[in-house]
Amino acid sequence: MQAALAELRGLLGDRLTTAPAVLDHHAQSESWAGARAPDAVAFPRTTAEVAALAEICARHRVPMTGWGAGTSLEGHALAVQGGLTVDFRDMAAVVEVRAEDMVAVVQPGITREALNAWLRDTGLFFPVDPGANASLGGMASTRASGTAAVRYGTMRDNVLGLTVVLAGGEVIRTGSAAPKSSAGYDLTGLFVGAEGTLGLITELTLRLHGQPEAVSTATCAFPAMEAAVDCVIATIQTGIPMARIEFLDEATVAACNAFTGMNLPLSPLLLVEFHGSPAAVAEDAARFAAIAEGFGATGIARAEKAEDRARLWKMRHNAYPAILASRPGARAIVTDSCVPISALAQAVAETRADIAASGIPGPILGHVGDGNFHAILLIDPARPDELTTAKALATRMAERALRLGGTITGEHGIGFGKLPLMAAEHGAAWGVMGQIKRALDPMNLMNPGKMVPQT
Amino acid sequence: MQAALAELRGLLGDRLTTAPAVLDHHAQSESWAGARAPDAVAFPRTTAEVAALAEICARHRVPMTGWGAGTSLEGHALAVQGGLTVDFRDMAAVVEVRAEDMVAVVQPGITREALNAWLRDTGLFFPVDPGANASLGGMASTRASGTAAVRYGTMRDNVLGLTVVLAGGEVIRTGSAAPKSSAGYDLTGLFVGAEGTLGLITELTLRLHGQPEAVSTATCAFPAMEAAVDCVIATIQTGIPMARIEFLDEATVAACNAFTGMNLPLSPLLLVEFHGSPAAVAEDAARFAAIAEGFGATGIARAEKAEDRARLWKMRHNAYPAILASRPGARAIVTDSCVPISALAQAVAETRADIAASGIPGPILGHVGDGNFHAILLIDPARPDELTTAKALATRMAERALRLGGTITGEHGIGFGKLPLMAAEHGAAWGVMGQIKRALDPMNLMNPGKMVPQT
Repeated sequence: MQAALAELRGLLGDRLTTAPAVLDHHAQSESWAGARAPDAVAFPRTTAEVAALAEICARHRVPMTGWGAGTSLEGHALAVQGGLTVDFRDMAAVVEVRAEDMVAVVQPGITREALNAWLRDTGLFFPVDPGANASLGGMASTRASGTAAVRYGTMRDNVLGLTVVLAGGEVIRTGSAAPKSSAGYDLTGLFVGAEGTLGLITELTLRLHGQPEAVSTATCAFPAMEAAVDCVIATIQTGIPMARIEFLDEATVAACNAFTGMNLPLSPLLLVEFHGSPAAVAEDAARFAAIAEGFGATGIARAEKAEDRARLWKMRHNAYPAILASRPGARAIVTDSCVPISALAQAVAETRADIAASGIPGPILGHVGDGNFHAILLIDPARPDELTTAKALATRMAERALRLGGTITGEHGIGFGKLPLMAAEHGAAWGVMGQIKRALDPMNLMNPGKMVPQT
Repeated sequence: MQAALAELRGLLGDRLTTAPAVLDHHAQSESWAGARAPDAVAFPRTTAEVAALAEICARHRVPMTGWGAGTSLEGHALAVQGGLTVDFRDMAAVVEVRAEDMVAVVQPGITREALNAWLRDTGLFFPVDPGANASLGGMASTRASGTAAVRYGTMRDNVLGLTVVLAGGEVIRTGSAAPKSSAGYDLTGLFVGAEGTLGLITELTLRLHGQPEAVSTATCAFPAMEAAVDCVIATIQTGIPMARIEFLDEATVAACNAFTGMNLPLSPLLLVEFHGSPAAVAEDAARFAAIAEGFGATGIARAEKAEDRARLWKMRHNAYPAILASRPGARAIVTDSCVPISALAQAVAETRADIAASGIPGPILGHVGDGNFHAILLIDPARPDELTTAKALATRMAERALRLGGTITGEHGIGFGKLPLMAAEHGAAWGVMGQIKRALDPMNLMNPGKMVPQT
């Protein structure tokens, strides 16, 4: 390791650090589990530097773990076997925007808010919005999605190509700026969601979308969660193109009201948005309202003004701190699962009952157009038994999703938090993931301890 | 081989055949090149039978090549190293339709027309439409797309999960009926487009879409190809949600007129369609017409009646036989490429000039919303020099796409026709494809001779 660090320092100078405060920062995460700190943190500036550091690390058998904004929820970016954390803070540029092709080329460290600020005057935007101001490299690696995925898709759908540094330092390019291709294995799709276990992403070609001419947002209160979910199913089947459709349970609404001073009705709520021409969104909103009323919705409140819409989405994006504040001193275990939409009401109802029986507060909210929902489990950090209870609740929520034909995570990813559940979801296919990992990273240097069977 | 055939006959009885007529049928393709016949053809009925035959073939080192409807254009399904062709003719059932989840589970041998006929009364449909009545297993393996991809995506976007028999006979399942997942490597996306080189697909979970309430179709004649392409770019940027947008050059229009008795104006043509509510499609069509007129379009003819629409799309789908008929006795070399849309006009113009200089007729048409276009090169089968000329034109068309930042094929795939171009497109990434192939199929038994470097 010391020999590797000496070579890395020769490559990066003071952009290679072993300062304890920096190491400690990279040992923290939004997940429930701590981890050992990396041995060093690198701040490369170019793909060539990443390739050179990977070559050095490979020669010295030093693990490499990428780092974006540190917002992942299952410990993805924690260097659980030590080694070098590669922080993309200094690779956060927009390389190119090709407006005619609706494509942006960016470095991995740029955050989605910074990218969209950059795009504001182009008439285009990047739609994937996981809530946190995550980095694009991290979002790609986690296959992030969020509120707008029901309309615009996830990172899987919005990454057209990548530059990747492989474990030995080789640089490859996948995909292109063409909208589609049938030329070979979908390597772009393989690296998206690989959580850095197959290589380090150093550049992304992203699909952009036109900023909608008109936007219509509404909140809509339902007598019960099941009615809200049934309304979503009916709306999807009618083909009304929703841009976002979010579910908040009563506890989430109460927490948001308390945190923001809003006065939303204390009942299961849908927060829905339509994008399009003025006439189209007006029609969509009216048709949705008619469907919602058929499911007993009351208090459909439209937010036509931009500032009212911004206030609603700020409320939604602040649901996490709002819920956290609802139990002073608590820390949150955030977990997600995703099911076929026909099973969503059952999955939410069973999860709610399970949480209620546990004695831990755990509001539920989610991207219901995708069958994806979250529980935010609030535990007293001084009580290890509550952490144990919360982890067991999260595990049962994932197992319930599998039983209902879904997946253990819709958008948070595996990290090491959900590694023990991979066999249950994938069976023999998990072994195939291990074969791919060994083929591309035979020395197991890229984010080791994650994603694949640990044999 | 004889020992393998004996075991296979024990497994399949008379659904294992070595009849010369059957072998010869499976040595034919829509591509320019012939190939040797397979040694035998199997007609399995279940995933378990496919697994059993793969296990037998693996023990005896017999290559396995999947066969759907035989409509692929680059020789994908030709058993170039002999062995067993696995014909999915008898695995063509709809296993399950889950209307609430908008999901269908099907066997690989069903064709897209059969599937959509089956779905007609459900209010749902499967949108991927490559023109030919291909099998779903073949469409997945080729990562097919076609006319509606600009709105509904390609097979990459519409396959949620797969059952796959691997080279040794192991069966894995990928994905689920949940709309999304971030649980592990995207194996579904890896097998989609792998052209059967990593395994045999024996079941597919497909994403369905609601049949649109209203459909509006129009043809639109332009003074020049460039104006038509610029109109498409402007329409996309405006965010008007086109369901289909097809380009036909003058030669294609002339051939279609002659073949169908239609009377379309003899100029570059867009064939455009909108899906949605009656009000939305009316607005979309009007906004499109305004944009098109700005680019000099004349003769915007709407087809509001279902039979008129059907006539137009039948015309489009029959463009291939229509073009073939325009040079009596000819056979067609069909080739495609795909570029960033900003480069589309240049790519088409240069291709057209190249074809004109060659002396071979070669109408051009394409899915211009995706930057994807086709040339149908008509050659005299008695003149080997024309085949050589056509192959050279196709190669230059692919190389031109790469020079313009695109891909050698948007939807036809690689087969063996485009294998020599893979290195130019992917560079070192092609080697990664080879690593994946060797990891999953170390004995090189799954459709050998295709897709990856042949070392």
